[in-house]
Amino acid sequence: MAQKAKMNNLIFRPHFKTHQSAEIGNWFREEVVKKITVSSVQMAKYFAEEGWEDILIAFPVNILEIEKINQLALKIKLSLLIESKDSAEFLKKSLNYETGIYIKIDTGYHRTGIASNNFNEINKILEIIGNSNNFKFTGFVTHAGHTYNCKSKEEIIKIHSDSINQLKVIKDNFINNFSEAIISIGDTPSCSIANDFKYVDEIRPGNFVFYDVMQYLLGSCKIQDIAVALACPVVAKHKERNELVVYGGAIHLSKDFLFDKNGNAFYGLVVNFKDEDSFSLVPESYVKKLSQEHGIIHLPSNQFGKFEIGDVIGILPIHSCLTANLADDYITLDHCKIKKMK
Amino acid sequence: MAQKAKMNNLIFRPHFKTHQSAEIGNWFREEVVKKITVSSVQMAKYFAEEGWEDILIAFPVNILEIEKINQLALKIKLSLLIESKDSAEFLKKSLNYETGIYIKIDTGYHRTGIASNNFNEINKILEIIGNSNNFKFTGFVTHAGHTYNCKSKEEIIKIHSDSINQLKVIKDNFINNFSEAIISIGDTPSCSIANDFKYVDEIRPGNFVFYDVMQYLLGSCKIQDIAVALACPVVAKHKERNELVVYGGAIHLSKDFLFDKNGNAFYGLVVNFKDEDSFSLVPESYVKKLSQEHGIIHLPSNQFGKFEIGDVIGILPIHSCLTANLADDYITLDHCKIKKMK
Repeated sequence: MAQKAKMNNLIFRPHFKTHQSAEIGNWFREEVVKKITVSSVQMAKYFAEEGWEDILIAFPVNILEIEKINQLALKIKLSLLIESKDSAEFLKKSLNYETGIYIKIDTGYHRTGIASNNFNEINKILEIIGNSNNFKFTGFVTHAGHTYNCKSKEEIIKIHSDSINQLKVIKDNFINNFSEAIISIGDTPSCSIANDFKYVDEIRPGNFVFYDVMQYLLGSCKIQDIAVALACPVVAKHKERNELVVYGGAIHLSKDFLFDKNGNAFYGLVVNFKDEDSFSLVPESYVKKLSQEHGIIHLPSNQFGKFEIGDVIGILPIHSCLTANLADDYITLDHCKIKKMK
Repeated sequence: MAQKAKMNNLIFRPHFKTHQSAEIGNWFREEVVKKITVSSVQMAKYFAEEGWEDILIAFPVNILEIEKINQLALKIKLSLLIESKDSAEFLKKSLNYETGIYIKIDTGYHRTGIASNNFNEINKILEIIGNSNNFKFTGFVTHAGHTYNCKSKEEIIKIHSDSINQLKVIKDNFINNFSEAIISIGDTPSCSIANDFKYVDEIRPGNFVFYDVMQYLLGSCKIQDIAVALACPVVAKHKERNELVVYGGAIHLSKDFLFDKNGNAFYGLVVNFKDEDSFSLVPESYVKKLSQEHGIIHLPSNQFGKFEIGDVIGILPIHSCLTANLADDYITLDHCKIKKMK
């Protein structure tokens, strides 16, 4: 991803919400990454204490945290994301130090952001920003999360390109007053699959650090690119239905699911951890059900006999961001611990 | 629940996995509760350190944790749950101190447990148990989790009574050799709705301490019995679709959902926290979508204007066990902190 950013002359501001780890963060320094994205004030504080000096909190600013925001803005180059006049007015009154401001644009995902054709609202916010010394307007940001619903790479590329075009129209409209405004995009499917980043100035993908089953099925990665698995002890076997019960439930894996080709929900794929030198996907196996601590794994009958109570098997998560968030720490294949934010 | 247990002459062994809090645990001491249930060795250790001396870990024993199990069994009256000869044989070799043993029976939920008609397997396990000094066989346990799929109270009562009947047949069959064996049941819907506990010796409900939207819709509780809500700051408003964006996503609420009468998934109900003296359900409002940190709340248009950016609203969780598990601590309505297990 760092190479792709370099080749396309893009600012690479990776999202650290997926790994939430100082040590993994350090791997990015080797790629000369200096700007990062996080999703909460708490996470910004954690990485600021680890020496990161240019951090965007890519979540609509929570004005109740203004005190902590000011403490951070004093110490580092902090950027915030706003999408309303109300938040802009509040910050104008309450920010004590220079802070970068991105305006969030909705290019079709309809989760947050100002509709991309609502120039009136964008203009009002820019007027507030332009009249405040503590605001340093950075640019227009979007998260085209609707790429996660796509059925093909072509669809993803279409959303990617539509999304950029919408941001370009906005940028062109306001460029006279804000000549340094940038366009920043974020979703991992677009950043992984697309090759055309014309008009884009910055990318903020996060999930790609681990990828997951959802990204694999979207075409963002190969199965062997999935870099994180939940290690689960087998606690029971039910031969009559070819199911293993593992100690690994919704409190460890979270509860995102996908549908298989027969329309049945599944909560993860299964990796054989017994041969450490050649981890491999257990064919036709999946996590069928999750409750608080229980995971129910379905195997084909010719795989069932390979696992015993006390074995540890791996679950490739549907959504690695949520699974990693629930873990205390990571364990590498060399049995080293990689610490995470608590 | 304590009164119901007393009236029916039942051992009350509440499940503490829902609250995971030493302080909330202490409330149960006022009801003369001395036996508790937990779902992990870690949780057993936490409550043992808080002075609880009779703890059942109601999860198929994870034999990889045998060292911690022995450490606990030395200090307290620890009980484990088994459902296979393999686990029984392992424990026979590896347990160093007297430990209570429950056998898990599957009465129809098909998550874990020995099928209730598989007397052969039960018998084999009881032979292993009978030949070991460190085993103290306690009884037969079930979790009739299929009550969660019921459409009426009558269905729940039917499962409750079927489930007890299956356990009674087993108990009667083995009572000559194990005269003190008890029958222990657990699910909150049955324990809340049923009034007939003939043949039952022990109940282990947990969720009732808070209840939640799922229990409300099952008929286990009234809406005003739901005792926990996720407090979420409003960070954005989208009038064009009557949606609020709150800082409260899957990493705070977890991701259990139910379907409304139109077949649309929802992830929680909404409580107005603005008037602290009279919290009330916001009519026709619900959590429409969750991503990692974002919650999308849909309101009817006549409610939309009541909320501003910076307000804190409450979300009643679909599944309070998962939501409470994700919280750092609880805050009471008097703004006191109630600490939880970390």
